[in-house]
Amino acid sequence: MTGILDQAKQYFLGLQSGIIEQLEKLDGHRFAFDQWDRPEGGGGISRVIEAGALFERGGCNFSHVMGDKLPPSASAHRPELSGRRWEAMGVSLVLHPHNPYVPTVHMNVRLFMAFDGDHGHQDAIGWCGGGMDLTPYYGFEDDAKHFHQQCKNALDPFGTQWYPRFKRWCDEYFFLKHRKEARGIGGIFFDDLCDPGIEESFALTRSVGDSFLSAYVPIVEKRRKIDYGERERDFQAYRRGRYVEFNLVFDRGTLFGLQSQGRTESILMSMPPIVKWRYDWHPEPDSPEAALYQLIQARDWV
Amino acid sequence: MTGILDQAKQYFLGLQSGIIEQLEKLDGHRFAFDQWDRPEGGGGISRVIEAGALFERGGCNFSHVMGDKLPPSASAHRPELSGRRWEAMGVSLVLHPHNPYVPTVHMNVRLFMAFDGDHGHQDAIGWCGGGMDLTPYYGFEDDAKHFHQQCKNALDPFGTQWYPRFKRWCDEYFFLKHRKEARGIGGIFFDDLCDPGIEESFALTRSVGDSFLSAYVPIVEKRRKIDYGERERDFQAYRRGRYVEFNLVFDRGTLFGLQSQGRTESILMSMPPIVKWRYDWHPEPDSPEAALYQLIQARDWV
Repeated sequence: MTGILDQAKQYFLGLQSGIIEQLEKLDGHRFAFDQWDRPEGGGGISRVIEAGALFERGGCNFSHVMGDKLPPSASAHRPELSGRRWEAMGVSLVLHPHNPYVPTVHMNVRLFMAFDGDHGHQDAIGWCGGGMDLTPYYGFEDDAKHFHQQCKNALDPFGTQWYPRFKRWCDEYFFLKHRKEARGIGGIFFDDLCDPGIEESFALTRSVGDSFLSAYVPIVEKRRKIDYGERERDFQAYRRGRYVEFNLVFDRGTLFGLQSQGRTESILMSMPPIVKWRYDWHPEPDSPEAALYQLIQARDWV
Repeated sequence: MTGILDQAKQYFLGLQSGIIEQLEKLDGHRFAFDQWDRPEGGGGISRVIEAGALFERGGCNFSHVMGDKLPPSASAHRPELSGRRWEAMGVSLVLHPHNPYVPTVHMNVRLFMAFDGDHGHQDAIGWCGGGMDLTPYYGFEDDAKHFHQQCKNALDPFGTQWYPRFKRWCDEYFFLKHRKEARGIGGIFFDDLCDPGIEESFALTRSVGDSFLSAYVPIVEKRRKIDYGERERDFQAYRRGRYVEFNLVFDRGTLFGLQSQGRTESILMSMPPIVKWRYDWHPEPDSPEAALYQLIQARDWV
């Protein structure tokens, strides 16, 4: 099972580089390169952009972390593994564009391993997780369809059961219970994937990572030229508050990172650059802002 | 034990009115009045201000909520009460001024009751909690001393052991573990107070509530005329991000509210109006911004 960790490291680093190369072409500005070590073991490479031409703030991070005792947030569904030696590796991306017509996007692919302390790597258990989801402000049905179609295309070669399952999982996961509201138009989400075998699980996970650019870039190219003003920026800042609420209250990855002595600045690169909260605000009926609340109602997009 | 609930309701409503009256005089604008019912039982009165002359956003809420099963976040230190019928009542205040030289402040006083289902109010257990703490952006040692002195004055009539205990509890509670940083210059915090008897515990809690105005208003009056510009506003917006991180990741009151089907807009009135996140930002050495990081190091203020 050690082989898969080496293979995964090579894959994740290549994925990060490939994505950054394309995003830099799109934006015209460079992403900063920030390599860091984790005192408790491991480290990562954070690639971050702020005040770009297209992206107001965002990042695409690689990390490889490890520890002696698996924290509870990593193994909610695997209590028997809690406390074992572990390694986790993955790429995590969040992009917050300036233009409120260009949606915020999140993508993550990761591999987890838990080891039996007595027998070393021989008795390792591995599982994968990941997904991508889209959070529009002023959204378009066509974009939602395109994004979901790309998600489906990534998964179908591994069996047509996965897309409907991971699509539903995404709708359930990215749901703000205290608002009774979806975070966006969804996408796919999966975790604890090992049943098809770790090789197949990781191949599926790679396919998700490899599909990110074709899922997101065409939407950016289509919407980035739309004019906007203060009204749209204001609504975007307000809706970004929901993003903050979700990530800090509910997101397992964020909680795991903060619990496992992760690198705070890399974990919280998901936070938007400017956010506003307003008391008990509701959009005017039939306004473009009200349309978003319709668009994010869970439905079948493909 | 029913008597104390009636007495508490009268006290809390009076405290809210009295505080709002003074804050409206300070600001010159009115706080909106928003009465709400909670479908699961109880309700509250939220008094909220946005875009005031002094306060950019803030609120002072009364709530009285109840339920059949005490949620875990309410009884972390009292697992034996988890699942009991309960009532909670209190006043909670957060104020975010425009001027970065005027600190953000938080105050809360509350009474909790858990009942034995078989014997009704006769077998009730009650406890109190509360406190107040100050979060400066460009801070002053004099203000920290004044605020702590007022906290001490509120508690000393009930025994000189309380202030040092609740001051330390505040420093420990309002600490951002993932940043290794205090939220502000502290104040006092207490919970699960019932040992001196519920009458005495509630009298102490009232004394904290009654001291809020004398702790905060003189600081406002002293600092509200200081000039500021974009640099100060920017640092304030950045530091407000820490406030958001604390409240959404760590704050027991916020988590209890969101877990117990509380009124989201009233709970999240604590969120600042405009917040910014910036990647791995650090203040220039010896700058006024760097001074804050010195000021919030825990120390004895009185």
